[in-house]
Order: sequence, then C-alpha cells, then structure tokens
Amino acid sequence: MRTVAALRARVREWNAAGQSVALVPTMGALHAGHLALVAAGLARADRVVASIFVNPTQFGPNEDFSRYPRREAEDAAALAGAGCHLLFAPTVEEMYPAGFASSVQVAGLTAELDGAHRPGHFDGVATVVSKLLNQAGADFAMFGEKDYQQLLTVRRMAADLDIPTEIVGVPTVREADGLALSSRNAYLSAEERARAALFPKTLMAARDAIRAGTAVETALAEADAALRAAGLVPDYVALRDAETLLPVTVLDRPARILSAIRLGSTRLIDNLAV
Amino acid sequence: MRTVAALRARVREWNAAGQSVALVPTMGALHAGHLALVAAGLARADRVVASIFVNPTQFGPNEDFSRYPRREAEDAAALAGAGCHLLFAPTVEEMYPAGFASSVQVAGLTAELDGAHRPGHFDGVATVVSKLLNQAGADFAMFGEKDYQQLLTVRRMAADLDIPTEIVGVPTVREADGLALSSRNAYLSAEERARAALFPKTLMAARDAIRAGTAVETALAEADAALRAAGLVPDYVALRDAETLLPVTVLDRPARILSAIRLGSTRLIDNLAV
Repeated sequence: MRTVAALRARVREWNAAGQSVALVPTMGALHAGHLALVAAGLARADRVVASIFVNPTQFGPNEDFSRYPRREAEDAAALAGAGCHLLFAPTVEEMYPAGFASSVQVAGLTAELDGAHRPGHFDGVATVVSKLLNQAGADFAMFGEKDYQQLLTVRRMAADLDIPTEIVGVPTVREADGLALSSRNAYLSAEERARAALFPKTLMAARDAIRAGTAVETALAEADAALRAAGLVPDYVALRDAETLLPVTVLDRPARILSAIRLGSTRLIDNLAV
Repeated sequence: MRTVAALRARVREWNAAGQSVALVPTMGALHAGHLALVAAGLARADRVVASIFVNPTQFGPNEDFSRYPRREAEDAAALAGAGCHLLFAPTVEEMYPAGFASSVQVAGLTAELDGAHRPGHFDGVATVVSKLLNQAGADFAMFGEKDYQQLLTVRRMAADLDIPTEIVGVPTVREADGLALSSRNAYLSAEERARAALFPKTLMAARDAIRAGTAVETALAEADAALRAAGLVPDYVALRDAETLLPVTVLDRPARILSAIRLGSTRLIDNLAV
C-alpha cells in the first residue's frame, strides 16, 4: 500500500475482527535482522505490517541518502516469505506533503554518541517514527537492538507523547563471524568486509575484560586502540547506562558498550550488553 | 478522571458502543467561550470529553502560570451543566513523569506574532496537545478561534504527525461590548475592563477600513496609534494570510487581523476575519 488512508482502512478491518497488529518500520534493503523483527511481530500480534521508507530527514547533507540501497521488489518477496501480511511503502510526498512543518525532538538520550556525530539524525527518526506509529495505529512496533540509541529514543518518544503502541526491542542478528547485519554492510569491499569482523570481536573483548574486572577506562582505551590499528576508525567507543545512556565508569548496573566506526567510506555501529 | 489509563478505558467503551468522541482541551477557569466548544463538540460527536490542565511548559518564566485562575469544582459544575460527559483533569506528574524529554515543534506558523513575543510558548502548546490528542483518541478536538495562531499550529501539528483527530475551529464568543471572552479578563480592574472594549472596537474599525479600501499599512498604523492612545500597548497589530499567517499587504485573499496588547499587567489577544 502506498497511502496512509489505505493502511488505516486495513488496520481498522483487522481491529474490528479482534486482531492485534505489529508494525516493523524499516528503510528497506532487508536482511535477516529485519526478518527477525517480522518474526518477533508475528509472535506478539495477529497481523504484521512492515513499512519501507528511506526517510530523507534522518540523513545529514553529507550522508548516504542518495546511495542508500533500494530494492523494493526483492524486499516485498522477502517479507511475504517471512509471513508479513502487509507492506506499507509510501512516497516522500505522502509522508511530507507541501507545508509540512513539524518535528519531534527527544532531549538527553540523543545528545551524545550517534547524536553528536549525526546532527539532526534523531530528530528525523523521532519525527518519522511518530508519524508511522500514528499512521498504523499498531499495538506493537518492533525495533532492532542494533540501533540501540534509536530504540531507546523511540521508546522515550512514544511514552512521552502518549502514543499507545508498545515499543519492542529485538536482539541483534549477526553473521557467523560476529558482524551485526546491516544494510550498510553492502557498501563494504571484500577486503573491508573481512576486516569488519574485528569490530564486534573488539567490542566483545572489551565487554569480557570489563566483566572480568578490567577498569572501564582501560578497556575502552584498549578497544579504541585496537580498532584504530585495524583501520576501523572509531567515532566513539563508550560504556553507557543501558536505560539512560549516561556514562558508566564503574560497572554497578546494566550497561551497554556502544561504538561507531568508519571503514573506508562506510560507517558502521554496534553495541553489546555488559 | 485523573489518569490517562482511566480516560482511555472510558473512550474505548464508547468506541466499542459505536459512539464518536470530541475532546475540548482547556486550562480551566471556564467561561461561555469554553462552553461553546462543548456545544460544538456535542453537535459533532456522541460524547464530549473536556480536559483541564494548566500546562506549565507553555508559560514563559515571567508569565502568569502561578496566578493563572484555578477553580476546578466550579468548572466541573459548568461542564456538567453544558452536557459534557467526562472531565479529564490530570496532575502535572501524570502528564510529565520523571524522565520526560520530548517536545514537538511547528516551524513557520509559530515564528512570529505571539511566537515572537512568547518564546517556547507554541512548543509547549504543540507538545501538550499532541499528548492530549493521543491520550483521548478522540474523533474531533475543538479549539477556539480566539487563539487563532494556536488553532492553526495545532491543526498543522496534528496533520503533520498523522494524529487521526479532526481539529475543529469554533468562533470567538464576545461580551456585549465586543471584548473576546478570556480567562485572563479576570485579571482586569473595573477601569481596565471598561477600557478593554476599545481593543475589539479598534480591530473592527481597522477591518472595516481595509474592507472599504484603506491601504493595509495605513489602517494598521492607525489601529496601533489608537490602541497606544488608550493605554492598550500593542505587542503587534498585523494583517496575515488566514491559512499561512504570512504577511498580507494587499487584501486579495482571506486574511485575519491579529493583535496582542498589554493593559496594566494583563496581556490580551484577539483577531478577526478580514
């Protein structure tokens, strides 16, 4: 479906039949991580709607909006194969008609980490997700833990604005060598792809070191140095509170190690529970 | 009702019975203008919910939040007498629990007029109204034309964020001498109250002059001078496009004359179709 009106009519039919609905918001270029979101939606709700929308407002002027991979027909087939009931794929004009002027901002959670390196990114995310949630009127919306800061930001936004959709986090899906699945992995050359496995390996080593009692500052500095030595240039490597994303200097509560690196012209993010 | 959960449960019951719902958001201190919103809601929907919430985030640090009139018992009686079915009167903690961090902004419409004189005001309005609309899940929400810039801002926000509630504007209710009803009229001394009638009279004269062919600039300058001469100190007197609020210098489309004045320590606003 291409229009909000058509989406709403279908969801209304399902609701009238007593069926619950889960939304899986995506930017397309689907991989097994997205299909895990569909599976998680099917486990929670009677019907699953996936959306594909490459949202221009969450890309910076020097980011990869124009080259972001688009392959709708393949994505539609993959979603159907995974048991998804409906694909909502609106145009930019349907989402942002002439005169559009509103934005949603979430303070605090978005100030650092990816927020510091991608100005305006989380405003774009919060705004488009508030729209998608209100459009779909779903009972649940599934977001991957791979984009951990996004997951917390969306959960905060939905709670703050009283959007009656439960935000569900779904664990990251990884390749055999540990690399988190991402549509951006497609940008990597074969050599870069092989080297990218050092990214999760380094984070796992830092996690294990912190758990084993290495000082947080030391473990993070070692991870940063190891990534740099491999040509995976970190934007940040940080240990943060798993709920507030405030810095954690001593591991006395649930935390998350989060990092973004640049490998050639590709930027990758990952995170792990500690 | 004091909680969002109770409000939602009641609206869900009504919807299940096939009944439509109109929301009348207010800050209390109700007058006949608010009751006209209730009447307009009853004309559109099966059930009317009024909310009373003096929203701290739409008041500036030097504004009248603490002295804003509060008289909930009287308000509840007036609403019942007007046929309103439910009063939702949440606490500040229910609306903004610990950790609240989101805000909604509407660009363009809010930049000038009251937006220029009350920094942050329309962010506070857009945020709290987005919450109230999502909390109530109403089919309609009624807003007075007296707060014309607010009406357009809320309508823009609801459309942009795909909140499925129709925003309905309701004509301003006036006293016999023309003064628009406002909870803030209660701040006026008897002498100020008598003088305040010059506010709508001056705007009506400017409207009539513009309609009769007087140059817009001339008519607005005369209105500004007349208000000043009477000690009603204008923040602005402006002719604006009725939809976009962009300046209108020649009356070639639906327009609105809008003004805010200060009378002693009281700030009043008004507007008229031209």
